[in-house]
Amino acid sequence: MSTQPPSPTRAIRLQDVGEWHFESDVVVVGYGAAGASAAIGAANAGAEVTLFEVASGSGGTSAMAGGDIYLGGNGGTPAQRENGFEDRTEDFYEYMLMAGGPDADAERVRLYADNALDHYHWLKEQGIPYRNTHLPGKVMAPGTGDCLIWSGNEAAWPFSEKAKPCPRGHLPDAVGELGGGGRMLVDKLSASAEAKGTQVHYDARALALVVDDEGRVRGLAVRIDGEVRYARARRGVILCTGGFVLNQDMLHRHAPQVKRLADDALSAGFDDGSGILMGQSVGGAAIHMDELFVTLAFYPPESNVRGILVNEQGQRFVNEDAYPGRVATQCLRQMGEKIYLLTDESIFQQPSELSRMEVAAVGESWEEVERELGMVEGTLVNTVSTFNRYAAKGEDPLFHKHEKWLKVLDEPPFAAISMHPGEAFYPFFTLGGLSTRPTGEVLGQDGEPIAGLYAAGRACSGLPRSAEFYSSGMSLGDCTFFGKLAGKAAAEATAA
Amino acid sequence: MSTQPPSPTRAIRLQDVGEWHFESDVVVVGYGAAGASAAIGAANAGAEVTLFEVASGSGGTSAMAGGDIYLGGNGGTPAQRENGFEDRTEDFYEYMLMAGGPDADAERVRLYADNALDHYHWLKEQGIPYRNTHLPGKVMAPGTGDCLIWSGNEAAWPFSEKAKPCPRGHLPDAVGELGGGGRMLVDKLSASAEAKGTQVHYDARALALVVDDEGRVRGLAVRIDGEVRYARARRGVILCTGGFVLNQDMLHRHAPQVKRLADDALSAGFDDGSGILMGQSVGGAAIHMDELFVTLAFYPPESNVRGILVNEQGQRFVNEDAYPGRVATQCLRQMGEKIYLLTDESIFQQPSELSRMEVAAVGESWEEVERELGMVEGTLVNTVSTFNRYAAKGEDPLFHKHEKWLKVLDEPPFAAISMHPGEAFYPFFTLGGLSTRPTGEVLGQDGEPIAGLYAAGRACSGLPRSAEFYSSGMSLGDCTFFGKLAGKAAAEATAA
Repeated sequence: MSTQPPSPTRAIRLQDVGEWHFESDVVVVGYGAAGASAAIGAANAGAEVTLFEVASGSGGTSAMAGGDIYLGGNGGTPAQRENGFEDRTEDFYEYMLMAGGPDADAERVRLYADNALDHYHWLKEQGIPYRNTHLPGKVMAPGTGDCLIWSGNEAAWPFSEKAKPCPRGHLPDAVGELGGGGRMLVDKLSASAEAKGTQVHYDARALALVVDDEGRVRGLAVRIDGEVRYARARRGVILCTGGFVLNQDMLHRHAPQVKRLADDALSAGFDDGSGILMGQSVGGAAIHMDELFVTLAFYPPESNVRGILVNEQGQRFVNEDAYPGRVATQCLRQMGEKIYLLTDESIFQQPSELSRMEVAAVGESWEEVERELGMVEGTLVNTVSTFNRYAAKGEDPLFHKHEKWLKVLDEPPFAAISMHPGEAFYPFFTLGGLSTRPTGEVLGQDGEPIAGLYAAGRACSGLPRSAEFYSSGMSLGDCTFFGKLAGKAAAEATAA
Repeated sequence: MSTQPPSPTRAIRLQDVGEWHFESDVVVVGYGAAGASAAIGAANAGAEVTLFEVASGSGGTSAMAGGDIYLGGNGGTPAQRENGFEDRTEDFYEYMLMAGGPDADAERVRLYADNALDHYHWLKEQGIPYRNTHLPGKVMAPGTGDCLIWSGNEAAWPFSEKAKPCPRGHLPDAVGELGGGGRMLVDKLSASAEAKGTQVHYDARALALVVDDEGRVRGLAVRIDGEVRYARARRGVILCTGGFVLNQDMLHRHAPQVKRLADDALSAGFDDGSGILMGQSVGGAAIHMDELFVTLAFYPPESNVRGILVNEQGQRFVNEDAYPGRVATQCLRQMGEKIYLLTDESIFQQPSELSRMEVAAVGESWEEVERELGMVEGTLVNTVSTFNRYAAKGEDPLFHKHEKWLKVLDEPPFAAISMHPGEAFYPFFTLGGLSTRPTGEVLGQDGEPIAGLYAAGRACSGLPRSAEFYSSGMSLGDCTFFGKLAGKAAAEATAA
């Protein structure tokens, strides 16, 4: 009936589908960590699964990550126990609830906290190798093959006061310059999905959902080799299409703060929001669309954490040992455009080129640095002297940086390293997406599920839904755990 | 066909409407400033208009406002010219572009800047009386019947550097305790709408839109006297239903920062988001849903502006002469929960009960105040001494407060007044809503208009779309100007 070309924003009516070119119980869109996990979950529940991926291979943006997955609870994973960390479920739960931000989904967090240890074993069953080793201190994705890292705000104020700190980032045993952990993670998951019979179609661009008169999703239009093809999903379609960080229009309409940043979107190339748009085209609600996760790799070297951060007014504004995503969020909230990291001789290291942080001023005294930065007389100097006075006693009464990272900044020469938003490397991706139940069922504006439609990963608003509170490993934890559940739920749905 | 009760989240199919109980060219939903202006605009373009209002009288949340409308350009309104302000269109435009925030709609701003002077005359034609008097200084809705006030950030840094400052808030000639200007505004507009033949139905709850197979909006279901009634709109339905500040579910899913505030939603009782949901039910896109306008009435008395604001760390963070909405936004961004206004004997006045601001500390020296507040030694004292040192020279190099508001805080006793979010009076309303063209046409996710559907006022994201940059009078300016345009556009649409 319609002569317009298929578009994610316009669902296709069932009666307009002439012929089904593919047919299975479950259709998964997107082959990152969420899509692969959804396929496994569905296959394990007995479903035939067809998966469409727009790229020529698996991975999506998941494969760009370090591969860190946030796990713990139930007394701890093997890596936690082996290294002396007993992780109580209630501490894990309380921390995750904070990490989800002011609108954390308590039901989702509960399910995750209770079952994250089982999920660790599930990941191992899919072939992902984990060592039982722990790297203390501040690391990102070290690429050493070691497993357990501190990957969030656990040990930082105010989190540390509300839940017993424990490292919970679990990296796969992958060695390489950028770690390669995310790549390995998806490779193992996709191998498992395919071993269980998932039919994968690459270079297949999902175009639009197919919906019947009752509003139930019945399938998907895809473009393959330049032709529109229709895939029937007897039980459900699962959108695992990632976020919308490459969709400038959506970014501007929902998260215009992105305009303060340089062009450092974290994406493998296909996070165009099309899955979210498809979900909305059949009445799905999108939530927390303004939440842009932003981080700032101001370490390694971890010695930088012993420096202090100041804004254009020469004031501190955050505990520098907080997770760098939290630090970056605070950097963006400061009045004025400049942010500096202050270091002394004992901790200074030339910033890496990748970080695009430049040395802005060097001086034999803080007065000299203050002058060189053009700051108001007495401001920076007073900030440092107040900090130093308490740091000498092992205290930070203003921002509660942990004693372990406190260093009296009194060894000249002193330096200020610029890390201004818009200039330094602040990579970002989106956290907003479709509203779903923990089962992945996509919810309408009325809070009721849309029959036949599921979503997982960054196409939905999941465990991570607040840039200010995020921890590394939450997103891949969410993708794999809730991807698996979405697969199971779709497989067990009544066939249409 | 459907047996479910009508709901804003679920459009009704044309074929399911048995009988039309009302019929006109244009159907307007909501009778605040936007709805009344839409009715006038439609009637002036020759349309028959039917208007449904859920309350028992006109007004909506518009009637609670001071009635301030942001106007200027083209050399100035009579009140501006009479008081020596020549308001160039380009200054007006530049300022409005800033006031719209990072995603300001340049097309809408252009249209408004070019035509705001005409709009002033249009408002007068509807019967709204304006004096040509000006109140200088910092006022809100003084209720004196005077017209022209400074109602935004025009004279405050950094706005003052980018557009020539000019007062642009225009209050109607209404005298009374809370001004009553908003009430008078809606009364005059509704009298005009009714004089032009608008058929108004009170106690009429809009339930759902009616849509045909091509996706064109054809009418509305309303509940009147407990019965579902159908209203046919031959040319268009205009949603003027206000925002969603009373819808807890929507607030939490889009603007969870609201959880930091006390229960001070600004609403006449019906800002439940139902118009936004109705728009979404037929594919309308909602944008900037996280933007919650928040303000803080820390003046009058305007002498408070001569005090300085500090956070829990004893640091300043904003130019205190900025618009109080901008101040409130910055208060909410500070790390820590406490915000204090510091005053000295010469400027101290007991805060009004309404503001819920309490005196937190009093001292003969700033050291004493610092101690009494439990602040870290030297922090507050240094903030005040740096401020005082420059204030004595008529400068504020840190936050660029205008010289006119600078006062050396050196006359004891000194006081700190608490104005903590969650305790003090931070009234708020929502700025996010349907995406529309300046004509009011509601846009789908693909940026194309949805035939037969229009929106104006806070049901859409209009001129004001950023809490940080907002000015008083922008929302009523938007409601009346773009309400009028939406009415005209709907009236001139092809009949279905």
